[in-house]
Amino acid sequence: MSLSVADIRAAAQRIQGRAVRTPFLFAPAASKASGARVFIKAEVLQRTGSFKFRGALSRLTLLTADELRRGVVAFSSGNHAQAVAAAARELGTSAVIVMPADAPALKISNTRGYGAEVVLYDRVKEDRMAIGKRLSHERGLVLVPPFDDYHVMAGQGTIGLEIAEDAGALGISPELVIVPCSGGGLAAGVATALSGTLPGARLVAAEPEHYDDLVRSLAAGARVGNAPGALSICDALMSDKPGELTFPILQSLHASAVAVSEAEVLAAMRHAFCELKLVAEPGGAAALASVLSGKVDVKGKTIAVVLSGGNVDAAMFKRALAS
Amino acid sequence: MSLSVADIRAAAQRIQGRAVRTPFLFAPAASKASGARVFIKAEVLQRTGSFKFRGALSRLTLLTADELRRGVVAFSSGNHAQAVAAAARELGTSAVIVMPADAPALKISNTRGYGAEVVLYDRVKEDRMAIGKRLSHERGLVLVPPFDDYHVMAGQGTIGLEIAEDAGALGISPELVIVPCSGGGLAAGVATALSGTLPGARLVAAEPEHYDDLVRSLAAGARVGNAPGALSICDALMSDKPGELTFPILQSLHASAVAVSEAEVLAAMRHAFCELKLVAEPGGAAALASVLSGKVDVKGKTIAVVLSGGNVDAAMFKRALAS
Repeated sequence: MSLSVADIRAAAQRIQGRAVRTPFLFAPAASKASGARVFIKAEVLQRTGSFKFRGALSRLTLLTADELRRGVVAFSSGNHAQAVAAAARELGTSAVIVMPADAPALKISNTRGYGAEVVLYDRVKEDRMAIGKRLSHERGLVLVPPFDDYHVMAGQGTIGLEIAEDAGALGISPELVIVPCSGGGLAAGVATALSGTLPGARLVAAEPEHYDDLVRSLAAGARVGNAPGALSICDALMSDKPGELTFPILQSLHASAVAVSEAEVLAAMRHAFCELKLVAEPGGAAALASVLSGKVDVKGKTIAVVLSGGNVDAAMFKRALAS
Repeated sequence: MSLSVADIRAAAQRIQGRAVRTPFLFAPAASKASGARVFIKAEVLQRTGSFKFRGALSRLTLLTADELRRGVVAFSSGNHAQAVAAAARELGTSAVIVMPADAPALKISNTRGYGAEVVLYDRVKEDRMAIGKRLSHERGLVLVPPFDDYHVMAGQGTIGLEIAEDAGALGISPELVIVPCSGGGLAAGVATALSGTLPGARLVAAEPEHYDDLVRSLAAGARVGNAPGALSICDALMSDKPGELTFPILQSLHASAVAVSEAEVLAAMRHAFCELKLVAEPGGAAALASVLSGKVDVKGKTIAVVLSGGNVDAAMFKRALAS
């Protein structure tokens, strides 16, 4: 099995009415600053404050009655955590979420707020996947991976379908669709959706510096990882390397990738505050940062930029406001 | 002439494709906090960052060719200023905007950014209406009032039409529609739109403390003003008294009004940041503040809350984050 546009259309049917059909907004100031015609897919307005709710709901709507009785487990730095917790509550099942102890406080408290049991671990010393697998085995819980799962990717890909639909209604045809990227679930899902609906559009993945594994993997033609232990303000984008399932999709669909600096990310958050009136978290602003910084050549083009998440603590937001 | 639903439908036609059809979003956290089913009309995502663009565009699309050649003048603390400036640019005419020297820096710079000539005045010592009228007379400019004009009200009223449409599509019927209120243009426009589309819905206007002229005017049965010189963080809601044209509409449609404190406004801005991922300015958050503070009895009801503007300086936003 791989991922098809039909899988994404099926996921769209499953999440319809439960996930927000987020708005696709023309961005005059970003357009002026970049010389492109910029449209923003405001996925910060998604339930739980990030696109991850789509993938979680896509996967959880496929659980059997028996699996729903037992519950699910997930590991995540925060957005997938909140998404799985909220999707579990929506579908009347329970969730255990394995989160790093240094995740933003807001993400931990929100995950608990959605009714999940949170198990904290040490990001440096412990292996979250091992903890997740152990909990899955011991308690009979279904493990919901953050990106390396076709049904999760299909859920994220529904963003691509909506961009294609809304662009069509506006009579525009984006040449580039730019998304923040960590393990590649959003990027692979959207790239697949575009391949069937907007074949002229090319996907660009924006990564933070020190976590530019996709940039280097695409150049190398094989999955390469990041140096361990690097810090980033983009807590949502700190995966080790591209996914085993996501990477071949991104390769075969000729996606490209760029890395952005922390200063560029903070400036993009500030732009979203001043000009878009949207709250973006650092990782959620990476794609916008790649446009405003000029890292991606967008001059004269029509582009769609996914603002993918807005779960940011007040302290970090103040840093962006001061940038 | 008064204001009819047909006027608002005509304004909706004139602004269609130019003004953003802003999203109507279910708000789970506000619902949980208030015991109501809360939907947010996210008008902060409107062009220029506030609903005022609708009213300005509604009025300016009626200018004659001769009037378009001469240009327009407006007086405003900021949101109407930006709106008239942007609408003028959109329609290829020029704008002179009379603004208080102590308006938020962001609003002044944005107004200039839309290409308008800004004339600053002293809020305490000078009369902005007199300055506006003099400029209108001397230069032959059409004066675009901020609220006391039926075509401006009709533009603001398009928000009510959209709420009714979107509520219908969701199969809900809001019992209350709550809007921030200064001179009453938004409130009168929306109340009129609702009278023809959602007759079961009652309009509630939320005002800041010290500027609760509508609360007192409705109680008195006649327009009464505010004590001069009071300060408010709600810079967008500091009008002297209800409008001559807006007040009779609000009276006849049985609107009600409440006042909210500054602490309640700041808490609502923080809620919008944490839970809605939307940037609200103090005045823009007044209606949400009236719900979250319990000032309006919403328990068990389905309600629509207009988040009307998001043009806030970083310093004020930090105050809200710290609240």
